[in-house]
Amino acid sequence: MLSPDLLEKLVIKNDTKIVYLILDGVGGLEVEGKGGTELQVAHTPNLDELAKNSICGLLDPVAPGITPGSGPSHFALFGYDPFESNIGRGILEASGIAFPLTPRDVVARINYATIDKEGRIIDRRAGRITTSENNRICAKLRENIRLGNTGVFVEPVKEYRAVLVLRGDGLEGDIEDTDPQKVGLFPLEPKANNPESKATAKLVSDFLSQAKSILADEKKANMILLRGFARHRVYPSLETRFGLKSLAIATYPMYKGIARLLGMTVLPSLEDINDEFKALKDQYNNYDFFYLHIKQTDSRGEDGDFDAKVKVIEDVDGLLHQITELNPDVLVVTGDHSTPAKWGGHSWHPLPVILNSRFCRVDQVTRFDEISCIQGGLGRQPTVNLMTIVLANAGRLGKFGA
Amino acid sequence: MLSPDLLEKLVIKNDTKIVYLILDGVGGLEVEGKGGTELQVAHTPNLDELAKNSICGLLDPVAPGITPGSGPSHFALFGYDPFESNIGRGILEASGIAFPLTPRDVVARINYATIDKEGRIIDRRAGRITTSENNRICAKLRENIRLGNTGVFVEPVKEYRAVLVLRGDGLEGDIEDTDPQKVGLFPLEPKANNPESKATAKLVSDFLSQAKSILADEKKANMILLRGFARHRVYPSLETRFGLKSLAIATYPMYKGIARLLGMTVLPSLEDINDEFKALKDQYNNYDFFYLHIKQTDSRGEDGDFDAKVKVIEDVDGLLHQITELNPDVLVVTGDHSTPAKWGGHSWHPLPVILNSRFCRVDQVTRFDEISCIQGGLGRQPTVNLMTIVLANAGRLGKFGA
Repeated sequence: MLSPDLLEKLVIKNDTKIVYLILDGVGGLEVEGKGGTELQVAHTPNLDELAKNSICGLLDPVAPGITPGSGPSHFALFGYDPFESNIGRGILEASGIAFPLTPRDVVARINYATIDKEGRIIDRRAGRITTSENNRICAKLRENIRLGNTGVFVEPVKEYRAVLVLRGDGLEGDIEDTDPQKVGLFPLEPKANNPESKATAKLVSDFLSQAKSILADEKKANMILLRGFARHRVYPSLETRFGLKSLAIATYPMYKGIARLLGMTVLPSLEDINDEFKALKDQYNNYDFFYLHIKQTDSRGEDGDFDAKVKVIEDVDGLLHQITELNPDVLVVTGDHSTPAKWGGHSWHPLPVILNSRFCRVDQVTRFDEISCIQGGLGRQPTVNLMTIVLANAGRLGKFGA
Repeated sequence: MLSPDLLEKLVIKNDTKIVYLILDGVGGLEVEGKGGTELQVAHTPNLDELAKNSICGLLDPVAPGITPGSGPSHFALFGYDPFESNIGRGILEASGIAFPLTPRDVVARINYATIDKEGRIIDRRAGRITTSENNRICAKLRENIRLGNTGVFVEPVKEYRAVLVLRGDGLEGDIEDTDPQKVGLFPLEPKANNPESKATAKLVSDFLSQAKSILADEKKANMILLRGFARHRVYPSLETRFGLKSLAIATYPMYKGIARLLGMTVLPSLEDINDEFKALKDQYNNYDFFYLHIKQTDSRGEDGDFDAKVKVIEDVDGLLHQITELNPDVLVVTGDHSTPAKWGGHSWHPLPVILNSRFCRVDQVTRFDEISCIQGGLGRQPTVNLMTIVLANAGRLGKFGA
């Protein structure tokens, strides 16, 4: 098998431009009466024209049958082994708010919750408190909690979501979630899964009991649930691995966070899809690699709203010319995973992909959808292969072996 | 994953005949105005007829997106893991001239070069000196260089190319090239990449300084550049692994060299394609496995000459009946890698393959080209799988498990 080390050794630098247009959760399923999947039903003359002049295929985000979170599916898109690179939810959230993590940090995602007098959870989202409430409560915890020499950071994200960062020597993060995932139950104890994490689990336990006292007078957010513990690790950047000076164009914190973890420059303050396409044009001379992330396809899939997801796809199709006019050396259109409206969440279904370059071997696919792309020249393969193929098409890989 | 050991354990001997027709670099790309790839444009009624009665597919020589040298791509064709089996250029060259290598040998490829008075390289190919000049200079070095107990062989290959073999106990070949790959620079020092190779690197350094003095009076070849260092390793033969008594029919030294490394008998003195097809017929009763290598498809691709590559393909098509008349139990037609005229060199694109046997499951493909074969029953898979499928079709593999 191709090892990451070998791949990196083959990398050549040049001045080609690579654009990834990622429609989050774009893969779908046919819903009765609609006449096909979201992509099949959408009217996408521009994507279809691109497919016609490109090589197409199907990508499995991590492995056939496996439904990925956004972390693994994005790591795979950027050429990082999704199994080996797997990352805690806490790290993703912390990176999403640009919290400056260090390798001495153990991080977990916080959900504020409401418990009853016996301590049973009655609302896992604390009545969806506002972000300003969240800010106030995080500050209150920060001011009052002390864990000896261990640094404690409680950072608001949005509504009922926040991040806990413990900073110190010898911390380890293999710790079970305290969120039992159901109302009516008591929060769980933070259980260490290995001996190295025991001391940290004890610190977490201490943190939780202090937090419980401090929050006792809160009406809604009177308890904390923790999940996705992990120690921070430093990933080699896209520039280190592939020589790509990279820009992330995204509106949602988590995707900016993943990009930041991989050393990409992240544009702040983009509000919507139009902003994103404009940003690509404005920044086009300054980077080699562009990751343009469209969140709304996934959101509408999660809502189970087939028609709304179709509409987002059509909107993106209408903006595609803003990318093709830049004439990038390699243009990829795909998603990170499927989110069929019929399923109402992330799913395991593979994704259609378009890869356009001067040196792609154009196949017979003439439409960008899950069924047409089965006939494509890329065949069906794991998403992690994509970056290798993209680098090859950009002339950025040397020959292997004599 | 199927391990080489397991595969070998399943091998059964019988008297079936297997023929590989390998069109080097046959995979191509569409060039504007030509109406398709080289294979699509070529008029190949015989290959198409064969495809119609066979199973087809696409092969990735080493991995999607990776451009292979001839070494890895040929190892894969013969069922050897192309990563694990990777080999130095020096070994390939030495084997190509049938130099009798031993496991005590470290080998590198020599380029004779011209340096100026300061020692800067002004011609990396020494004005393409003649082969007879090469012979004279190699002899001069052989007679004058002494490295204590270490054996030194300097063997001419062709024009400015030669081979250096050091023979002794404890030699190791993880040594950097001394060829800086650019004129205007000084040759590099032979740097050891690990402690085990340090002593050998010192010998190489000594060799180079002696060579420099000895060649000082030469007008053109007054310096040596070394690359592709490796210690020779002995590969298990096709006969040992698969029970195949094998014959290589090739005109170019490097391919004969690879075949020799895998224990194949190599026919000497074949001049052209007609000779090769005739040799197959003449030798058909004497072997189980025949590797018939056509170099010209690759050469014309390297030249960037689309039409000339089409012509070579058509020439081979016209000779195909000489193979099919022998009625081999398994006939494979494919390449080792793609060399599209448009790219002008080896590329990463997968290769079409035809596998014909009484027991293949014939698919709907009716034409031998890169686009048609996407629809084939073999799908898209790594070339290293091919030998397993071929052995199965020849009835040469037993059942795995109870």
